[in-house]
Amino acid sequence: MTAVPGPEAAVALRPLPPRAARVTGGFWARRLEANRAAIPLGRERLAGAGSIGNLRIAAGEATGAAEGAGFRDSDVYKWLEAVAWEYARDPAEGLLAELRELGGTIAAAQRADGYLNSVVQIRGEEPYARLWNSHELYCAGHLFQAAVAAARATGEKGLLRVATRLADHLAGTFGPGLRGELDGHPVVETALVELYRETGVRRYLDLARHFVEARGHGLATKPGFDPSHYGDPGHYSDRLPVREARGPEGHAVRAVYFAAGATDVAIEAGDAGLLAALRRQYDTMRRGRQHVTGAVGARWDGEAFGEDYELPPDRAYAETCAAIGTLQWAWRLLLATGESGYADQIELLLYNAVLPAVSLTGADYFYVNTLHRRTGARGDLQRSPAHGRRPWFNCACCPPNVMRTLAALPAYLATGGDDGLQVHQYAPGTLASGGLTVDVGTGYPWDGLVTVTVRQAPPRETELALRVPEWAGGSTLDGEPVAAGGYARVRRVFQAGDVVRLRMPMPARLLAAGDRVDATRGCVAVTRGPLVYAIEQPDQPSGAVLEDLRIDPAVPPRPEHRQDLLGGVTVLRADGALARGPGDSPYRPYGQPAPAGPAADLTLIPYYAWANRGPHAMRVWIPCLQST
Amino acid sequence: MTAVPGPEAAVALRPLPPRAARVTGGFWARRLEANRAAIPLGRERLAGAGSIGNLRIAAGEATGAAEGAGFRDSDVYKWLEAVAWEYARDPAEGLLAELRELGGTIAAAQRADGYLNSVVQIRGEEPYARLWNSHELYCAGHLFQAAVAAARATGEKGLLRVATRLADHLAGTFGPGLRGELDGHPVVETALVELYRETGVRRYLDLARHFVEARGHGLATKPGFDPSHYGDPGHYSDRLPVREARGPEGHAVRAVYFAAGATDVAIEAGDAGLLAALRRQYDTMRRGRQHVTGAVGARWDGEAFGEDYELPPDRAYAETCAAIGTLQWAWRLLLATGESGYADQIELLLYNAVLPAVSLTGADYFYVNTLHRRTGARGDLQRSPAHGRRPWFNCACCPPNVMRTLAALPAYLATGGDDGLQVHQYAPGTLASGGLTVDVGTGYPWDGLVTVTVRQAPPRETELALRVPEWAGGSTLDGEPVAAGGYARVRRVFQAGDVVRLRMPMPARLLAAGDRVDATRGCVAVTRGPLVYAIEQPDQPSGAVLEDLRIDPAVPPRPEHRQDLLGGVTVLRADGALARGPGDSPYRPYGQPAPAGPAADLTLIPYYAWANRGPHAMRVWIPCLQST
Repeated sequence: MTAVPGPEAAVALRPLPPRAARVTGGFWARRLEANRAAIPLGRERLAGAGSIGNLRIAAGEATGAAEGAGFRDSDVYKWLEAVAWEYARDPAEGLLAELRELGGTIAAAQRADGYLNSVVQIRGEEPYARLWNSHELYCAGHLFQAAVAAARATGEKGLLRVATRLADHLAGTFGPGLRGELDGHPVVETALVELYRETGVRRYLDLARHFVEARGHGLATKPGFDPSHYGDPGHYSDRLPVREARGPEGHAVRAVYFAAGATDVAIEAGDAGLLAALRRQYDTMRRGRQHVTGAVGARWDGEAFGEDYELPPDRAYAETCAAIGTLQWAWRLLLATGESGYADQIELLLYNAVLPAVSLTGADYFYVNTLHRRTGARGDLQRSPAHGRRPWFNCACCPPNVMRTLAALPAYLATGGDDGLQVHQYAPGTLASGGLTVDVGTGYPWDGLVTVTVRQAPPRETELALRVPEWAGGSTLDGEPVAAGGYARVRRVFQAGDVVRLRMPMPARLLAAGDRVDATRGCVAVTRGPLVYAIEQPDQPSGAVLEDLRIDPAVPPRPEHRQDLLGGVTVLRADGALARGPGDSPYRPYGQPAPAGPAADLTLIPYYAWANRGPHAMRVWIPCLQST
Repeated sequence: MTAVPGPEAAVALRPLPPRAARVTGGFWARRLEANRAAIPLGRERLAGAGSIGNLRIAAGEATGAAEGAGFRDSDVYKWLEAVAWEYARDPAEGLLAELRELGGTIAAAQRADGYLNSVVQIRGEEPYARLWNSHELYCAGHLFQAAVAAARATGEKGLLRVATRLADHLAGTFGPGLRGELDGHPVVETALVELYRETGVRRYLDLARHFVEARGHGLATKPGFDPSHYGDPGHYSDRLPVREARGPEGHAVRAVYFAAGATDVAIEAGDAGLLAALRRQYDTMRRGRQHVTGAVGARWDGEAFGEDYELPPDRAYAETCAAIGTLQWAWRLLLATGESGYADQIELLLYNAVLPAVSLTGADYFYVNTLHRRTGARGDLQRSPAHGRRPWFNCACCPPNVMRTLAALPAYLATGGDDGLQVHQYAPGTLASGGLTVDVGTGYPWDGLVTVTVRQAPPRETELALRVPEWAGGSTLDGEPVAAGGYARVRRVFQAGDVVRLRMPMPARLLAAGDRVDATRGCVAVTRGPLVYAIEQPDQPSGAVLEDLRIDPAVPPRPEHRQDLLGGVTVLRADGALARGPGDSPYRPYGQPAPAGPAADLTLIPYYAWANRGPHAMRVWIPCLQST
């Protein structure tokens, strides 16, 4: 859910109103259409998993036992949020009918006192008794987000009334002088702030602030905590108060959702100290706990952040939801600060951490986004990426999270106000703010030319700010050099028909990891423009086992657009060679020369497009020829 | 538990009888004394955890609720096995009293029909109803092993009678035409074979064979399996029949215990096809799934083997019990084949995978044996090695497993028969077989000279075979060159006073991992003799953060014996330098030169000795100066 700060919020940038940013073609338009086509499939899968059934049973519309764990409702709410944003993007009666029908069921499922969790209700459990693992406030948070989205997209307030009744129940249950437990899984914090923004009800912000400040004292693992569960308070972002923590730790999704919520609180409360703490935390993450794709989460065990510099490509957890939470956090920090680095992060995350989680068809998903799949890898669990993407999961948090995030994508493109427009992400379409309306034309991410044509302009000086990514050295604005890592700004009285051209060179770039990152030593990752690339088995020379391919980092990879491949991608051709095979022992005396292998050219595809031809071997980090 | 094959077993080598191999001084004598000193502490900790109390309650000697999970009994049995082997090593009344007293409690706890599991009995659960996770046969297996050890060590059969009554109950419950489930956690297979060897009761071997052959058809995850548990049959070594599996997979302890049991069955049944399958499996493990220390287990998630070449030092799981199970498996393959490579493996495992799990005091243990602890690493779970070693664990499988393994260590030193002696491991002491008695003198593992002095010899030609490890190139036997990776053999009519001298050079050796091992690219591991070395923070130059130390692989590290350090160790001094610090971003353009750092010499200690001065940063794999 994108944040829309309230009128008194301490922000540098302001989101555009609904429909003020539109994607009309190009790369993202195709991805958004695939996402829209998956909406009805999501409905079917939610029904098949019993998630919608749970709500119907709680509503008295059906009978039976509850399916699955207590967080199932949240899958439905995330899907509803996707429906709402899709309605905002392109209204259709079917979408509105879904919102009304399911909204009615949810309203009917709600208890008279405002409490709502279908699984707890059906099973007759005591509300909030196992909050460390019941996900009751987590579900509430996703309901609030869906309700706000529905209200903004449709103007209808039915779901919002359910949300405020539940929020009132929470506010009457938790807080100073009331119950002190915390939900083991954050998200309610950011959702309460957004509900405050939509309704103006201050107690929702106050409750969010309470939840943010109360965390970090081990409350999430009390009381009634089952010690056979994950016993580390860090797992729940509950080891250190938010102002003291060095960076996000433990369960990655929980940590970044919480950080996004804390940032929302900092913005709305104008709390500069809290904002500074969250910026430091983000920086800690960026410096040592973020994969080159932008994804976060190093460990399967606990679905968690690792230590600094613990970034294994093969066992990267990189949960889809964690990328989405990081995106939400970066967006809030961008609004708060106006710094282009956060928009760079959003770009990185969208193309290389969120998009890889969904197939080109839009219908299948990764839960775990590995950066390295070995030849013959075996999927031992349902969520193993070795299987390839899947239609759904027993724990189905990720698929509807992708749906709602892509449906909301236009909101991330630009910010603005009466003084002009700030363009953060590039896609063909239109952007409008404060009387300034522009058309954006671009072949991004394959080509770095962005042409902005003014369609309407106010009769006063305004500013057009175009992000020049950190990677885009040598860029020019209307032929004049502009610095990478900031905004190129044009301030004048614009006229309809004015054209501004930003040209960003896109050579292939080879990245090495820093000296303290062990898992990728001797390897390079290849990027071009905003995209991280990978080698996948089907594109390599016949007979070359992917594990044995080595790249020559001295020869720049060459781009080649292939309209026939993977829906149309620019591939990179690189020089390389084959290493010898695995040999008899994994350990050999240092310096014993490996027999020279034959030359073998490598073909790299954008990482987001891998695993669309079956599950093959793939790697983002490619060993260099000269490594020992 | 070491294996003692029956008279008709298909083996190349035969274990020595109890007390025929004795350690009288040197390196291992001190470690065994520390282990013996920990025996009473183990008793206290078992009592403190309620594990002994469970048996007392089941026996009617106490009242109360059962503590912990159903595998608790096995901790007591493993500790009793340690007591038995200690009694065999050096009899003491106190040890015998322990065996009798606890043995009496166990006998009293056993049901009239032979069934025995204190937790199941106290809780009134149905026996074998949740066999996929109840560990009932696992506990039975550890009881059998303790009972056999007690019988061999003391000649008393009390515990053996309990064991055979339980084994008879199992034989009447499971097998063809009876119940078909399998215990989720193997160990009963090897234990049943050892019980057959001790008692001669064939049905125990038959039942072991049934359990070995029945595995691999998904039976361990049926019936009553809880789908929220680990759902992959591979986790339970139950995905493929033992004859078809490429190598051990899934939960590492389960896999190697099962493989050891299957090898026992192959030996006793003279099943060459089964033996060949297990040798292939061992080789698969050795080539791609074994850490340089000999430890196995790459993943925290599922405590499991990873894919081939997935060998992360920092997140190595390398569970202590998995090293012990691998040791047991290697011992059985050594007996079956007589090949020195398996004895090399036993050496590697003893020094670098089992011994590192216990403190120099003998009283604290690692559950997880990491090969890399980062500066400031935080222990998030009780078993995190970041904490350092601990006295006990909630899941306390490892501490008593170390105790019983070290107590049985003399059994691994040599094999023999009427035709002579085969010496596999070197320690000062005496070895006797078939009328040939020798004294062994050596400063091993610090010095590679082994002096074997004949004390008694039969009046006929016999053979003395001394293992020359694969690492010991340039070795000589009485001045004559002998090949590394085999046995140096002297066959003659020995006379008392004869001396044979094996001299094994021990230069420091730098190892690199094979081309397909990603996690240690650009690094070397340093070994000397049988020992793997590591850098630990306290030994490094002041102010040098361990992560930033780089070794110069072109300069051979120099040994230096330090009697004052860590109980007396030979350290290695290596040339190196400091890399630049972590920098602002974990990713940088490839080839951008890192500022040259100042020279910094490294001091390496034996890996087994790390974490005896508090939990500090440590690494086995050290980045090389020339790596990018």
